[in-house]
Amino acid sequence: MDLATILGVICAFGLVCLAIFMGGGVQLFINLPALMIVVGGTLGATMISYPLRDIFGVFNVVKKALFTRSIPVNELITKFISFAKKSRKEGILALESDLKDVKDGFLIKGIQLSIDGLEPEEIRDVLETEVDFIRSRHHLGAEIFTTMGTFSPALGMIGTLIGLVQMLQRLDDPSRIGPAMAVALLTTFYGSIIANIVCLPIAGKLRIRSKEEVLTKEMTIQGIISISNGDNPRILEQKLMAFIPPNQREESNRYG
Amino acid sequence: MDLATILGVICAFGLVCLAIFMGGGVQLFINLPALMIVVGGTLGATMISYPLRDIFGVFNVVKKALFTRSIPVNELITKFISFAKKSRKEGILALESDLKDVKDGFLIKGIQLSIDGLEPEEIRDVLETEVDFIRSRHHLGAEIFTTMGTFSPALGMIGTLIGLVQMLQRLDDPSRIGPAMAVALLTTFYGSIIANIVCLPIAGKLRIRSKEEVLTKEMTIQGIISISNGDNPRILEQKLMAFIPPNQREESNRYG
Amino acid sequence: MDLATILGVICAFGLVCLAIFMGGGVQLFINLPALMIVVGGTLGATMISYPLRDIFGVFNVVKKALFTRSIPVNELITKFISFAKKSRKEGILALESDLKDVKDGFLIKGIQLSIDGLEPEEIRDVLETEVDFIRSRHHLGAEIFTTMGTFSPALGMIGTLIGLVQMLQRLDDPSRIGPAMAVALLTTFYGSIIANIVCLPIAGKLRIRSKEEVLTKEMTIQGIISISNGDNPRILEQKLMAFIPPNQREESNRYG
Amino acid sequence: MDLATILGVICAFGLVCLAIFMGGGVQLFINLPALMIVVGGTLGATMISYPLRDIFGVFNVVKKALFTRSIPVNELITKFISFAKKSRKEGILALESDLKDVKDGFLIKGIQLSIDGLEPEEIRDVLETEVDFIRSRHHLGAEIFTTMGTFSPALGMIGTLIGLVQMLQRLDDPSRIGPAMAVALLTTFYGSIIANIVCLPIAGKLRIRSKEEVLTKEMTIQGIISISNGDNPRILEQKLMAFIPPNQREESNRYG
Amino acid sequence: MDLATILGVICAFGLVCLAIFMGGGVQLFINLPALMIVVGGTLGATMISYPLRDIFGVFNVVKKALFTRSIPVNELITKFISFAKKSRKEGILALESDLKDVKDGFLIKGIQLSIDGLEPEEIRDVLETEVDFIRSRHHLGAEIFTTMGTFSPALGMIGTLIGLVQMLQRLDDPSRIGPAMAVALLTTFYGSIIANIVCLPIAGKLRIRSKEEVLTKEMTIQGIISISNGDNPRILEQKLMAFIPPNQREESNRYG
Repeated sequence: MDLATILGVICAFGLVCLAIFMGGGVQLFINLPALMIVVGGTLGATMISYPLRDIFGVFNVVKKALFTRSIPVNELITKFISFAKKSRKEGILALESDLKDVKDGFLIKGIQLSIDGLEPEEIRDVLETEVDFIRSRHHLGAEIFTTMGTFSPALGMIGTLIGLVQMLQRLDDPSRIGPAMAVALLTTFYGSIIANIVCLPIAGKLRIRSKEEVLTKEMTIQGIISISNGDNPRILEQKLMAFIPPNQREESNRYG
Repeated sequence: MDLATILGVICAFGLVCLAIFMGGGVQLFINLPALMIVVGGTLGATMISYPLRDIFGVFNVVKKALFTRSIPVNELITKFISFAKKSRKEGILALESDLKDVKDGFLIKGIQLSIDGLEPEEIRDVLETEVDFIRSRHHLGAEIFTTMGTFSPALGMIGTLIGLVQMLQRLDDPSRIGPAMAVALLTTFYGSIIANIVCLPIAGKLRIRSKEEVLTKEMTIQGIISISNGDNPRILEQKLMAFIPPNQREESNRYG
Repeated sequence: MDLATILGVICAFGLVCLAIFMGGGVQLFINLPALMIVVGGTLGATMISYPLRDIFGVFNVVKKALFTRSIPVNELITKFISFAKKSRKEGILALESDLKDVKDGFLIKGIQLSIDGLEPEEIRDVLETEVDFIRSRHHLGAEIFTTMGTFSPALGMIGTLIGLVQMLQRLDDPSRIGPAMAVALLTTFYGSIIANIVCLPIAGKLRIRSKEEVLTKEMTIQGIISISNGDNPRILEQKLMAFIPPNQREESNRYG
Repeated sequence: MDLATILGVICAFGLVCLAIFMGGGVQLFINLPALMIVVGGTLGATMISYPLRDIFGVFNVVKKALFTRSIPVNELITKFISFAKKSRKEGILALESDLKDVKDGFLIKGIQLSIDGLEPEEIRDVLETEVDFIRSRHHLGAEIFTTMGTFSPALGMIGTLIGLVQMLQRLDDPSRIGPAMAVALLTTFYGSIIANIVCLPIAGKLRIRSKEEVLTKEMTIQGIISISNGDNPRILEQKLMAFIPPNQREESNRYG
Repeated sequence: MDLATILGVICAFGLVCLAIFMGGGVQLFINLPALMIVVGGTLGATMISYPLRDIFGVFNVVKKALFTRSIPVNELITKFISFAKKSRKEGILALESDLKDVKDGFLIKGIQLSIDGLEPEEIRDVLETEVDFIRSRHHLGAEIFTTMGTFSPALGMIGTLIGLVQMLQRLDDPSRIGPAMAVALLTTFYGSIIANIVCLPIAGKLRIRSKEEVLTKEMTIQGIISISNGDNPRILEQKLMAFIPPNQREESNRYG
């Protein structure tokens, strides 16, 4: 998992738990029926909104977004420069042997298409279509988490209303009012936690990761097209550099 | 009904009902006047907002979205390939006999236009217009449900205000305050349930289904145009494949 | 008034009133100062936001939207076909005598321009400009009602705050707390009713009516251009048909 | 000040004040610290958001929007027709003597450019740039007021929280709870008033006035270009008429 | 720091603190666990949403936006005019010696590219790319602060719910209810302050500063292109003037 997510989870959950501990005990904040209403209701409303396949798919997308690291851009540029040099010297077919060391399936596919002799424009078409599908898969993932982040506080409020209605019917025993109300508020508490510390931040991260990955893919496409066109390695480097913010370029020059 | 919707309904409604049962009894949560205000008021506000024909139409759209399955894309591709082969061998008129087995009215109409000898561009025009109308009907459906999901919590709050005002006038009998307040809160409860477990999820599903159906229709149009143009079955397959996400394509290759 | 609006008003207002009656009496819910704050304040804020002329104009737009019916599209097509036949037989000047029976000012103007000998493109320019102004007038109307629907709950809350502040100063007489609070809540009640049962639904209806009217006007423009061009009545019918959803076309064929 | 604004202010503020008077006394609703938190805090948050120059500029824009009337469009058309006639008879240089009577700086500048012999396209460029700056100035003004209308209820809530926290620490003297709570609610009251009766309506009016002024300026540009081109006065009138809604044109014909 | 920010901070924080002082004492409003939940939870949720590098980067962007002043536009124009004169007299290479006095790295880079003999269009490409990255960095900064301004009130509410649940379990000692509730409300108080006086105003300022800086950069690009093209200094001045609002131009004429 990336560092920011780990730190964020520790920071947010840790402090909330700490506050709960300091206030007297965790058992006050654990209530299974309340958790069931919020988690189950949110999942239920989400399942009515989206096809099952998309909901299962989203967990895959999240796992990938949190645990997989895309190739650092500088490394990618270095690799493309070496490909370009080899391709100009020994012909593009020579790249076939290098493909074994490449792990990125997208890059392999692109080079393969180039080796197969497709025109640069055709290669771009095929790869751009793939990037469009990746983008729309990420977009759907962020959308589903945003939807869950909208339903969970609403379900939390529904649970609290259930608790309040039940409590108000038994006002005769004043000593039970407080605890009953406390339990009623727990669903709102769960709903807020799920929305603001789980769903909405994950939706945000998916959006950011999507931009990063699409950018890397666009660079990869540019690199493959350049190699297909037989561009000079220096020109290829220049073209790929244009994708990196200027203040990160110095560093990449060291590698390039 | 599709599996996700059934599971979602069970999950969301089931857990809410379970929580109500566990808390003492369902009769606390049934109140006809409260239900009337929320359901009737929401429908009323919706009827002022939209023409009756559109509101009745929307139930049709929902029924179709929840109960009809569009042809799986892989099956569609297989069918088009067989059509393309036959058409190239025996001429396009030979397809007329195959139309009896086709259930999708849109596909029938497209092939018929092709048999009638319209130019590909004319066929595309006619079919695209139809897809536009389908899209705008779905869009209207999702919009109406979103509107209902906005009005129902508002009507819930109006009902609660009515209950509160009535209760506050009779504060002299403390034993009646609790139950009266419980009843007042029920409209807010109904409003939230209707919005978050019924209307908004259905609006979401309509949007998703609309995208799926429009995609299938676009594939159908592409297929019919390809057949009209006398495309090679392999090229036709390639063109249709471009509509499917790459990670679902392997599977379709088995069929194709 | 159209049926949906009447049914909607009965449904929404009727049920709210019924709930009030069943709860004990209408006099609890009538409070002139509270009504004055909400209605007057909402109108006041709207008058600061928009010029007087626009606010008065909006009532006109609403009246027209609720009480005038545009010519049914099928009838319009029938009329255009008869115009086209006559124009092709006896020349376009022959249409002048038919204009007496036409009630739609927009149609009269268009035919008149055609009789006056303007080029089709000039006719389209003149009429499209007029449609643009109609569209922006409707748009302004919906916008003003949406604005009122935003201000009225806010004014309701302001009124409730006034009532609460006054009540909180006189907590010494407990018997007056309940009724004072009830009165304070009435402004919030009025504000919600005005927003959710009056302003926002009317804004919605204006948007729908605007789309309908603009569509009819676009059909009218197409018809007039076709007649000016001397199109064959069958082609004119086909061109106008393209404006109607396919599932409503069968019906229109019977007339056409 | 324009009539609608005066009426709106009387209507909104008058009724709120009336309700306050009828409820017992104004002194309950005057609390300097509360007012300071809301007004000062809102201004402070706005000053962090926008440069000082823009905030001071906005008061200028508001003053102009509320107190200056743009030339009525009909008068403008009459003036342009007389300019066009004179220019065609005596040459464009003859217009120099008429500029003394013109008050609108924008119109003077445009005619001056035309007298100086710039090409129509150059004149349009210079004037359109100026209109762009006017538009963005108005836009910024409306944006700043919308921002203030968002901050003021938030600051109102912050003030109420301060009051509540202070009150809750001294629950031992029950007779002071009511008044302390009343004072705490005043900041929310001020925040709502400032947002809904001052800031948001003014933001609305700025947007409307901006559209009106930009339209007048666009008409002026069209008129100046027509004169530069030596258009026939009738054609000039027709071109300017296209900017006016058809239902207001009859009236302008009387003048034209 | 710019004047508006200092004044705004004094105004907003000062008045809130004053109100707290006047109400009895600051110690009521200081509660470390409450502050930890809100600040830590907000940072945590933000860290899950964004990569660490972006979050650290944003503080840099804010520091620059609050403490660095861009070159006043009038000064920039004066400098470009002198560059243009020198370049036309002594050739563009003569500018190299002037670069020592220039502090703006962007301007230095642009002139250097011009001296290096790149074509104007190439210079524009390079510099526009850099401006795009600056713009997207600013945009990200404003987005992160808006996100924090959305999470902090939510975390405040979560903290208040924790406090309420803990308090409701111990209703038996009435003397502790008030203070416990006061402490519970503090997290909501902190969340509102952080959102409305810190995060959202800073997000606003970043957006404004971004527009200013991008405008200055665009002017710089235009100036460098003009010099590369060997434009006459008067034409260069005119081109740069077009970036300044007309009502600020008089002033700049004095310099020019």
